[in-house]
Formats: sequence, structure tokens, C-alpha cells
Amino acid sequence: MSNCIIAQSGGPTSVINSSVVGLLNANEELKTFEKVYGGLNGIEGILNRNIIDLSSVSDEEINNFRFTPSSGLGSCRYKLKDVESYDEEYEKLISILREYDIKTFFYVGGNDSMDTIAKLSKYAKINNIDITFIGIPKTIDNDLKFTDHTPGFGSAAKFIGTAALETYLDASVYINNGIFILETMGRDTGWLAASACLAKIDNKPVADFIYLPEAEFDKDKFLKDVKEKFEEQNKVFIIVSEGIRDKEGKFVSEFECVSQDTFGHAQLGGVSNYLRMLILEQGFTTRVKALELGILQRCAMHCASDTDLTEAYIAGKMALKYAAEGENGKMVSINRKCNENYEVEYSLIEADKVANNVKYFPLDWINPEGNFVTEEACAYFEPLIKDMPNLTFEGNLPKFKVFN
Amino acid sequence: MSNCIIAQSGGPTSVINSSVVGLLNANEELKTFEKVYGGLNGIEGILNRNIIDLSSVSDEEINNFRFTPSSGLGSCRYKLKDVESYDEEYEKLISILREYDIKTFFYVGGNDSMDTIAKLSKYAKINNIDITFIGIPKTIDNDLKFTDHTPGFGSAAKFIGTAALETYLDASVYINNGIFILETMGRDTGWLAASACLAKIDNKPVADFIYLPEAEFDKDKFLKDVKEKFEEQNKVFIIVSEGIRDKEGKFVSEFECVSQDTFGHAQLGGVSNYLRMLILEQGFTTRVKALELGILQRCAMHCASDTDLTEAYIAGKMALKYAAEGENGKMVSINRKCNENYEVEYSLIEADKVANNVKYFPLDWINPEGNFVTEEACAYFEPLIKDMPNLTFEGNLPKFKVFN
Repeated sequence: MSNCIIAQSGGPTSVINSSVVGLLNANEELKTFEKVYGGLNGIEGILNRNIIDLSSVSDEEINNFRFTPSSGLGSCRYKLKDVESYDEEYEKLISILREYDIKTFFYVGGNDSMDTIAKLSKYAKINNIDITFIGIPKTIDNDLKFTDHTPGFGSAAKFIGTAALETYLDASVYINNGIFILETMGRDTGWLAASACLAKIDNKPVADFIYLPEAEFDKDKFLKDVKEKFEEQNKVFIIVSEGIRDKEGKFVSEFECVSQDTFGHAQLGGVSNYLRMLILEQGFTTRVKALELGILQRCAMHCASDTDLTEAYIAGKMALKYAAEGENGKMVSINRKCNENYEVEYSLIEADKVANNVKYFPLDWINPEGNFVTEEACAYFEPLIKDMPNLTFEGNLPKFKVFN
Repeated sequence: MSNCIIAQSGGPTSVINSSVVGLLNANEELKTFEKVYGGLNGIEGILNRNIIDLSSVSDEEINNFRFTPSSGLGSCRYKLKDVESYDEEYEKLISILREYDIKTFFYVGGNDSMDTIAKLSKYAKINNIDITFIGIPKTIDNDLKFTDHTPGFGSAAKFIGTAALETYLDASVYINNGIFILETMGRDTGWLAASACLAKIDNKPVADFIYLPEAEFDKDKFLKDVKEKFEEQNKVFIIVSEGIRDKEGKFVSEFECVSQDTFGHAQLGGVSNYLRMLILEQGFTTRVKALELGILQRCAMHCASDTDLTEAYIAGKMALKYAAEGENGKMVSINRKCNENYEVEYSLIEADKVANNVKYFPLDWINPEGNFVTEEACAYFEPLIKDMPNLTFEGNLPKFKVFN
């Protein structure tokens, strides 16, 4: 009986470790592999033989690991060269996998990780190497094609929705309120920013405007919209994706930001700070605040979606099952069967198809004005953020466990 | 039977509404007042007769309000002039209170609100006005004297501790990690930044350094400490209070400081980014990130401390009881009876003593190097962040209710 290895790659999410635990538990049931190894820091660490035996870790630690955010096996942003042009690295990796008698390599990640899975499985096929490669999806950006959504996204959306609600309340307490701009991640796609539409009080969205990379950003229209809304209600709450672009496709955040520190260094703030300065220049209010949610979006386990955690766990289990069935070069995908009574099923998709695609936020889910999203978008998001995880606490804070 | 009014002032907290509900419920039991009015936007709103009848609000709405962060009655930063020099405003306010047949005015707030309570009760005494004034403490800063801690602080500390844990994990996933700087609020005192000492993994604090306004900030020592730690462990996790000062007492970061609020307080922000630039200038690493937790610290109800919520609620109840006993010009205070088996009792303190004092973080709870806090500080913080609130959800996000 041979072994398998699982590793993580790319940006962290709150639920990426849950997939590892799902795979471990599935192997306990199915006994497909003798040992499940963990590769620390992805391909980069495996190439340095940074490999641990996850099968020997105690159940208690594994359970804490399941509810620990961020890549608990460490991560990397290591890109393999093309199979055709360079194979020394491939040979080294394969020889290390053989050393550990590894039959299947699992990689939890996004587009780039699926590129790695595709390349490695291609290399193995070409060279008649009896090792298989399976991808498990993960990214808060929700930008992988051929899957209804990605594990990690639901928890990020839940944090964004919650933070939008709470910061809206904080920004609305005075008689003279101002303008508040909340910036989300999402360099290429607007899924994260759009999910803020879920934040509602008395059934009304707290956001007045939501700006996404998929909708061309027009500065003049923006300023007109904001001024009108401010005159109407004396406060404006804006959600903006870090990746919004102008009509030439240039990132708005690349425009120069004018604040300076004591040494005269230009402060390159995020896009929210840039929009803040734009509004201030108009002179109709001096109260404009900007907040970047930053990395909390991808690691706020305390505000995770239990649906997301569970799906990440099952994706790990399914990966093992598919490996046992001899699948290779594919990624586990999630298919939504029904929106009303939310239900999903799992299947496989070729990793190279995922690697070379981006799933943009649908244009027909953006309003004609390009500054909000439709009810259909809200209905898509809502089931993904359901329920709270049952965390273990120590010293009144969550108890976390990492291996890297 | 006459009425009472309750209003909120100053910066929001996660639990400020809980004090209002505590008072409402106490009045249902004790029947001290016929009606409990809510003054919207503090003194400023009351002067404009923005007054609602809280006694007629449904139980369901009041229960949602109890678990709603930020000042649900609205807030203000309105400073009354001295009693001696100007009494037109006082006369106007008293006449409005008489109009509503108000016997007691309750104000939930910090130093400035206690200043208002002290002045109003003084004015009433001088002028033989039969209206009493009681303060209920509130501030995430925990800087009020004559109370062990303030409602609002525990929830902020819990969010900071949780966010420190999670962002530490996110900042530690690569082989080549960098330096991460997490900035907390705390303009004058270090309570908030210090509370990050609670964030531990495997019993070891995740923070390498914690910098507080109470410990003189030495730039050279800071850079030396950070460089040494980086060489030792290839990552450094730093907590910094927005209010750190140099040996002349000057705020380390005044570069983003563009305005002053109505009380003449400097508006700070961006010290973490300033430190980031300082480190980058040294050239020993290019990976330095900074994150300001911003207003989430004072409104993250989803991560509130149930102990804090409960104490805020009881402080509201006690305020009503003290009013029924004829007390005047005082603030409810919380006294810790025991640390091991955490227990508190409530008493009263003259509002003018609170108004003119600041409770600094104890110097003997700071290590000799001035870059961390002691175990005694951790023991003080730990019981304040206990347990999670039982929130109501709607559309899978917390259901909130506000009146402003």
C-alpha cells in the first residue's frame, strides 16, 4: 500500500485546512493510502523535502487544524516551467515523491495551483510515471470557472457582509454624517465586493453603491452619484473592489494618491483612499472615511460560514475518493443543484481548463448604472454564508493549530 | 409619575445599546418612571427635540437593539460651555426636559459625556432644578478612572485578540515571510494595543512586540529590535497603538493628521504605515505589511464579549436603580472583586472626577524594554473577553435594529 501527499498553494482562506482534514478523514474510512503526508509550503517546500506525516497527528490537533484559518501547511507562489522546455525540476519532484512512495499528489489552490496539477499530470503521462495529481479548489476570489463557487469564498463573503453592516452602523451615528468607503479584495473580479449586497437593515441594503472591476469606472459619474446621494440622505456608504478600472482598463488604484508622510514620501494608498481624496477635492463635505478590510477577509475564521467549511471538508473527501477511482489531472468542482433549497453535488473538471480561465462576475447581475448588483446576485450569495462554525476556545479566544 | 430620558454620546462601542436596554428593563421591573424617552444624537439632538418614546417599542425590536453595535440612538460630540459663563443653552435644555416631564437624564459615554453630566447636575443644583443626571460608562479605550474597566472595552479587546491571531496566521504562510504591523486604536492610552497579548498559539503570544503610548517610542531601538527578531525567526509580528509618542511626547505619526475634532483632539491614523516606511528604508526586507483595524474595533458585534455585553446591560440597570435612590451627578462604576473567579460589583463615582482624569495603562505592566506587556496585564484582560453573544440572524447575517 502506498502513500499520498497533500499541500497548499497561493493565498490563504479561512477554510483551506478543512479540505486537508476532509481528505485525512476520508482516508481513515476508505484506507486508500497507508500514510497521508503533508507537504509544507507547497511545491517549494516539497522540493526541499519539508514533508510531515499527517497520519500520526493526534485527533485533537487535527480537529483544531480543521477550524484554523490560513494555510496551516504553509504556502508558496511557485510556478512550474512548461513541461516541454524544462524537466529537471519535474524529475527532482518525482524522485522525492517516489522516495516517500507517493501514489497521489493533492494540491489545494486556485488557478496557478491547477496549472501545477495540469502540468504535473501531463509530465507523468508523457513519462509513464504512475503518480496521479488531483486539485482541490480554494480561493476567496471565487474566480475559478467550472465550479459554482470556490471553498473560501463563502467565509470571505460572510465577513464582508458582516463588516459592511457593522461599519455602516458606526458611520451613521452623527447628525452630520459623511461618506464611508469600504474596500474589499478582488483584483480581477468583483465577487467579493458584490457580496456586500447581503448586508441589509430592515430589508434595505446598507450599501448605496457597489463598484466592481467588471463595470467600467467613470470618475465623473461616480462623483455625481455620490454628491446626489449625499444631498438626499446626508450619508453615503460605498463598497469598492480594489480592482476597479477605467474605460481603458487601467486600475483606478494606479492613479497617484496625494497624501504625504513627514519625509515627503508619497503614500500609495488603496483605491478607497484615492476615491476619498477625489470626493474631498469636490468640497461638498469634509467627512470622508476609507477602510480597507485587508487580509482579514481571507482569515476571519471567527466569522466563517459553516456551509463553506463543510463544503471545503467534503471537497477534500471527494478528492480522495476520486483518487481511489484512478482519476488524474482534474479538480474537484461544486455544482449547485438548487438555489431555493440549497443543495450541491461534486464532480470533476480537467485542471488545465480551470488553470487558463477566469470566472468574472456576470454582467447581467450588475445594474444598468454600473453601481450596484441585482437581486439574482444576492440570491446566489445567500446560501454560501450560512451558519457559524463551532470553534474550540482557549483563554477565551479560538484555539488554532498549524504545522508550518 | 414622571419620565426619564437616555442618550448616547462620543464614539460608538459594540455594547452601548445594551446599557439602554438594561435601563429599559430595569424600569419595567421597578416602575420608577412612566416613560423612558430616547434622546437621538445626544445633547445635540435633544436640543432639537429629537426625542422618541422607547417604552412603546416592541420587545422584539428592543431585543435586536440590545445586540446591535454602535450608538443606535445616534451620537454627538457636543461640548457644553461652562456653567458659570453661559447658561442660555442650559436653560433651553432644562425647558425641553420639563416639557417631557423628565426627572432623570441618563448619558452613556466617556470622559466628555461625564463632563456633561457633571455640568448639568451642577447647573441644576445651583438653580434648584429638580432633575437628576446619571452617567453610564462607555468607551472602547478603557481610559476612565475610578472603574476597573469600561463597557465596550472587552468586546474591542476580543476583536483585537482574535484579529491578531488570524492575521498572524495569514502573515506566516510563506518560506520567506516578512514583517506585519497591526495598528489598534488608543489615542492616549495603550489598553487596546496591550490586549493583543491575549492572542496565543501553543501558549506563546503571536505578537513579538507591542508598542503603547505610555512607553516612550525610540525609533532606533525599534528598528534594532525588529531587525534582530527578523534575523532570528524570519518573521516579525508587531502590534502598535495609534497613539505612540516620542520622548518629547509628540505623536510618532502626525503625517496623516489633518484635522482636529470639536474637543481639540488630534485625529490620528496611519502610524503603522509610517513604521512600515521606516523599516523599508533599512533595506533588510522588502516584505513589510501594515493593517489598521480601524472602526471595526468598536463595532464588531459578531465578535463581542458576552461578559462585556452583560456588564453594559447591568450598568444600565444599576443606573436606573441609583436614580430611583435619588443619586445625582454620578457615574456607575464597575469594581473587580476577584480576578481568579472573576466577579464584579457596581457602585457610583462623582462624574466630575471621571471627566477630568485619564486612566493610563500601568507602567509596571510594561516590560523594562518598553516593547511588551506583563503576565499581570494578560490576567487583567482575560475575563473581560469571555463568551460569545447569542445573536439573532436574518438572511444569514446578524439582525440589527437602530432608532437614529
